[in-house]
Amino acid sequence: MARIADKRIAFLLTNGFEDSELTAPWEAVTAEGATATLISPEAGEVTGKNGFTQSVDLVSASVDAADFDALVLPGGVVNADHLRMDDHAVAFAKDFFAQHKPVAVICHGAWILTEADVVRDRTMTSYPSLATDLRNAGAHWVDEEVVVDAGFVSSRTPDDLPAFCAKLVEEVEEGAHAGQTV
Amino acid sequence: MARIADKRIAFLLTNGFEDSELTAPWEAVTAEGATATLISPEAGEVTGKNGFTQSVDLVSASVDAADFDALVLPGGVVNADHLRMDDHAVAFAKDFFAQHKPVAVICHGAWILTEADVVRDRTMTSYPSLATDLRNAGAHWVDEEVVVDAGFVSSRTPDDLPAFCAKLVEEVEEGAHAGQTV
Repeated sequence: MARIADKRIAFLLTNGFEDSELTAPWEAVTAEGATATLISPEAGEVTGKNGFTQSVDLVSASVDAADFDALVLPGGVVNADHLRMDDHAVAFAKDFFAQHKPVAVICHGAWILTEADVVRDRTMTSYPSLATDLRNAGAHWVDEEVVVDAGFVSSRTPDDLPAFCAKLVEEVEEGAHAGQTV
Repeated sequence: MARIADKRIAFLLTNGFEDSELTAPWEAVTAEGATATLISPEAGEVTGKNGFTQSVDLVSASVDAADFDALVLPGGVVNADHLRMDDHAVAFAKDFFAQHKPVAVICHGAWILTEADVVRDRTMTSYPSLATDLRNAGAHWVDEEVVVDAGFVSSRTPDDLPAFCAKLVEEVEEGAHAGQTV
């Protein structure tokens, strides 16, 4: 039975992403019936740090969070470092919080959320190198496999993907959360 | 005439550094007579993002800022992301500020300084992706080729290296600065 058959999930990333942090959640949400869309600053293809390649469906300048039900932010240090400098990507990510929609972020993916200034007073985790940046941005950073704070899902590394993907599907199924906000 | 013949300059980095951000300042200080030492978390060799390789002289667990006159922090996103997670490297970098000694940082190198919590109320620049992290850590971030704040030298990218290297040599020649502190 497809648990999230009517849901549209945005994946926001660029080159240098952690391959499994795209492929595992993508497979998890599509296996449950959702439609997944790969969004990136430039059209064409994106390539992960380990060589996995996938076509870009939409560019960040042309998308609207209103057209999606949830957002996934894979990690990879180069991906995350570049993505945070794309103003369209930052605004798009911020709008999911403004619209109370689930956001799932793993590894280095959270840098764009410090740029969007949406982590203040939220409980979350990340790759450990970002802990100070997230705390300085106002987050309550904790070292756990997966953290769920009112529709905001976060994990640390690819090792956490099974727990991350399970919570992602669960939060998408639940839909909007009042506490998931800017 | 060697302007800084008696000075000992520490270069702190790990794999994935921006090659020219090691080689250019290394050449600049040694050409003026200083002794340069490459310090890294692990012994052996370090390799830059573009393939340049150099031997590690000392490991971060065994060094003392008291044995050096200045610190250089090259960039490269992978280098900087890893280096900030080495507690010995963070403490070593922090001690240069505590001892009022010149510190020169370029590109992504500044992440370790947010970890060391030494940028509060300091004027500086960096690769633009770090601007929010540095502001959140209390820095006055500006977009300039090179910034000098009381012995604290910072630049943005390899394009800034000529100005960065000139100011590095100048600050090392001047020695300790009272305003260069934690």
